[in-house]
Amino acid sequence: MVDPARINWPVPEPELPEGVHLALVEAAQAAATAYRAARHSHGRADLGATVADGADGTPTMRVDALVEDAIAESAHRNGVNLLSEEAGFLDHGSAVTLVVDPLDGSSNAASGVPLSCFSGVVTTDGVASEALTVWLDTGRAWWAEAGRPTPYRTSGRTTLDGASVNLHRPKAGSMDGWHRLMGRIGRLRVLGTTCLEAALVAEGSIDAFADPGSDAHRLVDLAAALVMLPSAGGVVLDVHGRPLTFDPDLTRRWSGVVAATPQLGEDLVAAILG
Amino acid sequence: MVDPARINWPVPEPELPEGVHLALVEAAQAAATAYRAARHSHGRADLGATVADGADGTPTMRVDALVEDAIAESAHRNGVNLLSEEAGFLDHGSAVTLVVDPLDGSSNAASGVPLSCFSGVVTTDGVASEALTVWLDTGRAWWAEAGRPTPYRTSGRTTLDGASVNLHRPKAGSMDGWHRLMGRIGRLRVLGTTCLEAALVAEGSIDAFADPGSDAHRLVDLAAALVMLPSAGGVVLDVHGRPLTFDPDLTRRWSGVVAATPQLGEDLVAAILG
Repeated sequence: MVDPARINWPVPEPELPEGVHLALVEAAQAAATAYRAARHSHGRADLGATVADGADGTPTMRVDALVEDAIAESAHRNGVNLLSEEAGFLDHGSAVTLVVDPLDGSSNAASGVPLSCFSGVVTTDGVASEALTVWLDTGRAWWAEAGRPTPYRTSGRTTLDGASVNLHRPKAGSMDGWHRLMGRIGRLRVLGTTCLEAALVAEGSIDAFADPGSDAHRLVDLAAALVMLPSAGGVVLDVHGRPLTFDPDLTRRWSGVVAATPQLGEDLVAAILG
Repeated sequence: MVDPARINWPVPEPELPEGVHLALVEAAQAAATAYRAARHSHGRADLGATVADGADGTPTMRVDALVEDAIAESAHRNGVNLLSEEAGFLDHGSAVTLVVDPLDGSSNAASGVPLSCFSGVVTTDGVASEALTVWLDTGRAWWAEAGRPTPYRTSGRTTLDGASVNLHRPKAGSMDGWHRLMGRIGRLRVLGTTCLEAALVAEGSIDAFADPGSDAHRLVDLAAALVMLPSAGGVVLDVHGRPLTFDPDLTRRWSGVVAATPQLGEDLVAAILG
């Protein structure tokens, strides 16, 4: 019997390319397994219930905690450190740290909107070497190595007017930016998952993604994009020009702009600031 | 070698339940097969190129035409009539007419945003008996029979403030409605595919979907929802109270509201009208 309170769709195994760092492979697999189990055991309301306050200063949903716990166990087993949204920095004495968003699009993941991701970056002594984003609802994965071209490419678009741009949902702080962009964007979407939206920019399916000024993003939300976009021809910027760095302080925030080209990124920033 | 101009993700076979009308099964399968072939043969720009003007008065993209042609052939083979977005009414002398949106979310389908659907309804002498929506990027399907409860249910939410509401993208005619809703919605998303968004309302993953006043919807966009939502506990309304009927005139338009409950639907209509 189907239980309509549950999310009754499967969570497939991630489809990972050859060559991904073992600790990153196992973290992604742990995320998928834990998310599958969470949907099996809990209804939507349970998945979305607040169970703690995260290291990033925002409430932790049950589904976030279940997935992050599995990733933390995986990182411990692999002997690598973990910097993660809710748990903060877990030091296992390694030069390697996985910088992870266990479940990007938590609200989607808890409610059943099939748009949520695992996203992780391998860093060694603070330098990022590769990034992996897995769309958990389908198993699709995007992988990139720092400084090496990806098989997928951005759209290459340079002009904002008429572009296909995804936006972070409207919040206090971004309403002015929203209004300035709404008249210029050709095709606006709001998917509620920065990591997947950044992957769509990287592969050329949309031209850009932006938080129009609400400082919604932590490092973990943008970490994979910081590796993936330059490798695919694109760029990641902050609306206020703050440098995006692999800093373990998860209380830092950015209004991230992910764009197909540096010129489109700069145009978006200028349009948001007005 | 991967061609970055192509959409390089698979289009799986639709996962259809037992009992679906054979003509509807074959139309859905034809849509998936044609969309897969189109992505294999054409890059994004080619898929989105305008090739004709549709019966609904809007431009037809190449990807729309390729998918609709396959469905029309399938309907002819099955001896049923077809009412479809671009081709209009194709009379094969049957009492049964399939009312079909061949490729809902055409812009997504052409650009590679993995959110597009086949959606169809079986009508006999103008009375709808069943509806099927297939998310082509995953093969997930939602089926409903008129007047029979579905295994999935809406969220049951009755209040607008704080609700999870998807909106049709902002257009001339919907900006006032957009602004009135933005302050009241708890979680706003814009996916660009009415049929999938209606299915997410039906299964309880979001509370509602609305076009806030731009008359964006034709019958084919809302036909499946008209069967599916009542069966799942929800409702389909027009912002201006015009009755939604299975009328073959595809130049008719509605500002559709799809909601988990009649009360939430009425509240959304009132909020959009202001």
